[in-house]
Order: sequence, then C-alpha cells, then structure tokens
Amino acid sequence: MVEKIDARGKSAAEIVGRLRRPDGFLSVRIRGAARGIVEGVREGGDAALLDYTERFDGVRPENVRVPAEEIESARDSLSPELKDSFAFAIENVRAFHKRELGRGWEMHRNGATVGQRVRPIRSAGLYVPGGHGAYPSTLVMSAVPAQVAGVGEIRVCTPPGTDGTADESVLAVAGLLGLDEVYALGGAQAVGALAFGTETVRRVDKIVGPGNDYVTAAKLEVFGVVGIDAPQGPSEVMVLADAGAFPERVARDLMAQAEHLSGASAVLLTPSEELIRGVEPLLSGEPSELITLVRVRNNAQAVEISNAYAPEHAHVISEDHEAILQDLDAVGMVAVGDFSPVALGDYAAGPSHALPSGGAATWASALGTRDFVAHTNYIHFTRDALGEIGPHVQRLARLEGFENHAESVSVRMK
Amino acid sequence: MVEKIDARGKSAAEIVGRLRRPDGFLSVRIRGAARGIVEGVREGGDAALLDYTERFDGVRPENVRVPAEEIESARDSLSPELKDSFAFAIENVRAFHKRELGRGWEMHRNGATVGQRVRPIRSAGLYVPGGHGAYPSTLVMSAVPAQVAGVGEIRVCTPPGTDGTADESVLAVAGLLGLDEVYALGGAQAVGALAFGTETVRRVDKIVGPGNDYVTAAKLEVFGVVGIDAPQGPSEVMVLADAGAFPERVARDLMAQAEHLSGASAVLLTPSEELIRGVEPLLSGEPSELITLVRVRNNAQAVEISNAYAPEHAHVISEDHEAILQDLDAVGMVAVGDFSPVALGDYAAGPSHALPSGGAATWASALGTRDFVAHTNYIHFTRDALGEIGPHVQRLARLEGFENHAESVSVRMK
Repeated sequence: MVEKIDARGKSAAEIVGRLRRPDGFLSVRIRGAARGIVEGVREGGDAALLDYTERFDGVRPENVRVPAEEIESARDSLSPELKDSFAFAIENVRAFHKRELGRGWEMHRNGATVGQRVRPIRSAGLYVPGGHGAYPSTLVMSAVPAQVAGVGEIRVCTPPGTDGTADESVLAVAGLLGLDEVYALGGAQAVGALAFGTETVRRVDKIVGPGNDYVTAAKLEVFGVVGIDAPQGPSEVMVLADAGAFPERVARDLMAQAEHLSGASAVLLTPSEELIRGVEPLLSGEPSELITLVRVRNNAQAVEISNAYAPEHAHVISEDHEAILQDLDAVGMVAVGDFSPVALGDYAAGPSHALPSGGAATWASALGTRDFVAHTNYIHFTRDALGEIGPHVQRLARLEGFENHAESVSVRMK
Repeated sequence: MVEKIDARGKSAAEIVGRLRRPDGFLSVRIRGAARGIVEGVREGGDAALLDYTERFDGVRPENVRVPAEEIESARDSLSPELKDSFAFAIENVRAFHKRELGRGWEMHRNGATVGQRVRPIRSAGLYVPGGHGAYPSTLVMSAVPAQVAGVGEIRVCTPPGTDGTADESVLAVAGLLGLDEVYALGGAQAVGALAFGTETVRRVDKIVGPGNDYVTAAKLEVFGVVGIDAPQGPSEVMVLADAGAFPERVARDLMAQAEHLSGASAVLLTPSEELIRGVEPLLSGEPSELITLVRVRNNAQAVEISNAYAPEHAHVISEDHEAILQDLDAVGMVAVGDFSPVALGDYAAGPSHALPSGGAATWASALGTRDFVAHTNYIHFTRDALGEIGPHVQRLARLEGFENHAESVSVRMK
C-alpha cells in the first residue's frame, strides 16, 4: 500500500517524523555482532575469516584471493555492448573526478610561507556488496575516484556466491579497471580483514563503499584504526515535482528507487493533487510499500521538507528547477529536470552513486576524490618572519602554561 | 630517561614498532565507558548530563549554558597584549582557511551538465579540552575554519573548572570570535549532549575537536548519528635534523612536544651522533621520558621512518629541507627549516593545530574548512544528452536486475 500524506497544514519536522528511515547499522544488536566479528578476525586471521565466510555465506572458498586468470577471463567474456557501456560510464566518472580532485597551494607574506599539499592515501579497501544481487557499477563508483586520486594499493572485497567465487560482472569491471587484488569476502569479516590484516589480506589505510547493515556497522567499529567513508544506509529519493510532471515518468522514478528494497524509501513531494492521482495507480508490488506521496502547499514547502529530511537523492521536475536547486541544502545528489532520471547518476553520469543517506547528507558528501587523499599543511618562516610572529606565540604559549613552546621560539630569536 | 635507538642497521618497520604510541581511546574499556555515558545522556537528557558532570568534574553547574555576560566580561578582561596576540592568530588562521575553502564547479558536454556545490554544514559542536589546563588556542583552531566555511550554528563545549564555570581565556576567545553559545560541559557527556540533544543543548550535525580518551571514544561511538572529525590522540613530533642543527634549539623542540605529557611523543631522527650528544644533556624532567633519540643512516632513512610512522607533526631542519618536504608522505603538519618551530603552527601560523595523530595521518588531514562543508553533486541532462547516455544506463541497470531503473530512462526516450 502506497502511503499518502497531506502536508499542507503541517510542519516539515512533522512530515519528516512520519517518513520511514531504517538505521539498523546503528542498533545495539548489529553493532555488537559486527564488533564480535571484526575482533574475531583480528585475533584469528585467515582461519577466522574462512569460518565466518562458511557460516554467513555458506561456502568455504578455496581461494580467498581471486586468481588473476579469473579476473582476465571475466573481462574477456563481457559482451561488446556491455564493455562499451562500462567504458562509457568509466570515462564519465573519471572526467567528473579529475575535475573534483583538489590541488595543493601556497601563500606568502613577509617571509612566512604556509601551504597545503594534497597526497593520495597509500592503500584503500573497496567493499562491493553482493548477496541479493551483483553491483559492478559500485566498483566503478569507488575505484575510479581512488585511481584518479592516485591511491597506490587498491584491494576489493565482494561476497562469494554459493559456488564460492566472486560475481563475474564485478570481476569483469575489476579487469577493465586494471585492478588485480580482489577477494571473495563479504560482510563484517571482510571489513575486519581490511582493517587489521590477515595472513592473505594486507590491511589498508581506509575502507570505503556501501554494504549491508553488518558491513556498515563493522566499518563504524574499526573507524579510528583505519579511515572510513560516511555510513551509507538504505537508498532514498525525494522527487520534487509540480503540475507539469508526467505521472508515468514520476511513477517510474519512484519505483526505480523503491526496487532497491532493503528499507529503501521514495517520496514524492508535489503541490499537484492531479499528479498524485495520476501516479498512484502506476505503483505496484513490494516496492510500492516503500513509496510515500506527499501533497505540499507549494514548491517552497517541498524544499523545506527536503532540507529537513536531508535525502540521499533529490529529483527536481519543475519549470523552476534552477531556483529549487539553489534552495536545496542538505542532499547528496540532485537530478535536475525531467530528462535527468536519478538512474543516470546511478550508472554513468559522472558523480559517484555512493552517497550519504539516513540524514547524513547534513554533514557528509558523495564518495569522491577527497575520500582518497589526505592533506599535509606546512609552514616555513624566515628569521624576519619569525621575529614578527614570535612574540605572539610566546605570549599565547605562556598563557596556556607551555614554557618550552615559548622557549622554542626564544632560542631562535636571540 | 631519554630513550636512544640506533636505527642504522634496522628497517623502518622495526623502529616504528619500538616507538610508544598510546591509543587508549580504542581500548575496549574506554569505548565501553564512553558508550555507557553517551547512551545515558541520550536517555536521561539534562538530568543525566548534570549527574555525569557532578561525578566526573566534581561540580554541578548552575548554568550549563554560559551566560552572555560572562563571555563579554571575559573578553573585556583580556589584557591588550593578549587581545593583540589572539587577533594576530585569528587573522592568520582565517587567511589560511579562506584560501583552503573549496569552491563549486560545473562541467558541460553535449547537453549534459554535471557539477558540485559546496555548502556549509548547518550546525557544529566544537569541543575544547580543559581539566589539566586551558586551551583557548584550540577554540581559535576549530572555530575559525567553521566560521570561514559559513556554519550557521556553532556550539562550544568545554569542561567546567572546580568552581563550575568555563575557563575564562576560552570564554574570552569565544567573545573575540562572536560565539555566544558556550556550554560548561566536558567529557563523553558533552559529546552525548551534542549528538543527541538535551533540553538545554540542541543537537548538532557534526562534532569536532580534540579531547581526552573518553571524549575521543565518545565521538567514535556517536559517529553515524552525527559526523565527527578524525580521532586525535596524544600529540607527536618527529624532528628530522642533520649535523647543521643547533642542539639547544632541537632540545627545545623536543621538550615543547613532550611537555604536553598525557602520552605525547617526541622523536629526533638524525644521522649526526654529535647532535644526539649535544641534545641529550639538555632534556630533563618528566617530559624527557617521552623523548626518543634515533640515530639514522642518512636523511633518506629518516624520511622512510617518518613515512612509516605517519606522525602528527614533522619538523625538518636541514639544508635539504625542500627535498625532504617533497619526500615526506603521511604527516599532518610539517614545519620547514630552523626558523619554523612547531609552536608557530600550534598558535598562530595559519593551519589548524587540530591534527591526525597515532598514525591517522596516513588517511586523515588537519581540521580545516572541508570538515565544515558538504558537497552536493548534481546532474542536468537535455533530451539529446539523455539520448546518448540512455542506452548505456538501460544496459547496465538490466545487468544488475533493476528494470525500473531502465524504464525510468525508456519512459523519457519514447
């Protein structure tokens, strides 16, 4: 059953409070389970890794690391059409992230130089989910930004299927991207292996990529030991559409989001009762239970609700789309205009589809090159410049009781 | 007792293994305690907050929120010299972070527009440590980047002293920066209040700033509910100095780092036995126990050890400092040359002194404007551009079994 809400007399907070938003990865039970598993891998290494894989994936793979020939053969078995489409997607994602990549800079003033260098992190672990389906596109969306950033070592973990091997389409993309380190490992145990290392899996500096609740909870557990990206929960879209939108298109947009299932959420915000009447009969099946149709006063209230909810995706279908885009605040990715279904961004437009959900868009961003670089600040003072800054530093250091800090300046000013 | 190591015949990994590096905030005990406290505040609100404050800080403050008059009066009581020095520091930190602030951009190709907007996060909680001392400089280092980024609401938490009030110098800086929301709250309970909100403290979107092990562990516990910055543990420096360095200066640099105590660490890496002989007798007291003097084969080995250790700070004193700076990889902040003691960066040079430690410099950066912004990606396609990308998206979506994704394109291409 599609849920319908009349928001016209209500506050944004009230509406957001009524929208479903599962955050299982924060639950005490799942956090505890994930903690147990990553600790188990930390202590037990490969043996524990294989035990957990047998327990959760029902297989005990012969090779945890996928042999190079399997990757090559998966790549070579790809149809020419799929090869072409992956190449198209990879090119767009690469172009977007080349533009996004930060650059170092330097400032000078009276003999004082301060600056910032941008450097790739040395190793990254990319999690590619599996289980219910296979997501080769997710590997494109995390590996390409990592490669553009210049990450030296990239390790990919993706769950084994019932035959104990990694999904062939994921391996094919690894082959297209020249990635040769792929492990048929999933779940919290894969995260534990990447964070602490085992006999066969070397630890990485940072782990990124979406996964199920256990994967996300495991990443939160190991944060601090390694870096992680923002947690990514069930997928969400808010479609802000007004009377000019076509019901059959909007219905597809909502169904597309909802067909992710697993707690996904698709919300239509529209001032048009007619649009709601047109869309509703086109929604069906299990996904339709994840869809909410919200009648709003006007576009301004739609924006207000979206900003309060902070969705992973927004899709704006309105003649005023440029103005609405400017007013949207907390949101991971915005698809603008009727000819830009969110699916373009999911697969090939350029930005990564690894996006903050569950409200994390208030403080987090799409996965990007900035997740794969770190910044080193530096300062370089001449004797004269030291003469200018020195007395201030001495005064402030002494205020805080740090005499040696002050003296590290004095000893150079004599 | 100063520890000495001869690294000449040893590997970088071996040396790093011997250097102390406390990471109490990752311990099961402290994580568990912090978890209990933040959950207690989540459930108990203000009452729990006051109970924890009484228990850990020994006071039950009458006003958790510092009255505006207290902030103003603290600012007005500042000596003209200190006011001048804080103004100098604030100006430099502001200039640095204005330069650092990212900008939005847009790319166009055959009717396809993709771009990125940079937006300030809406609210941030800044933790300013206290207890053993007062750190007004830390407020400068986190509040100025937040203000430059344009954060709308800034809340500051800093532990109450034995009289139940916040430190006057911290309040004075709040006054100088125009911050009016300061809470006399510390420890894990302050983090819990900022993450979940209580009757008097409104929740924020992100919590940043250094603190003791409980504060850092509490931040790790609430990550996901809110954003946090990289964990900051005990302070560290590696001084890479060769035969030209002055022993009395290097000794001060080491003592300056070590006087932070609380598990701080200061390491000299030098090929010069003479420098070690000159420095050693100048080190004394409790800080000297946190200092290690390492004899290396040459500058190249010093760089290798530093890169493997990934220190919070490095200080390079050598005629080859430019070359060494280029070779240094994982490090939070580098002070370059003899006239640039690390203390300049701690107080007034421009970069934030809130830096990744404990090896987190492999994947994390200094606190900066990027901690206070989020990015919204957007895509905007014309009908023609959709015609180009559409078939690829349909093919990739169908490969992953997402028929509605494919149809959300088809329905627009008819």
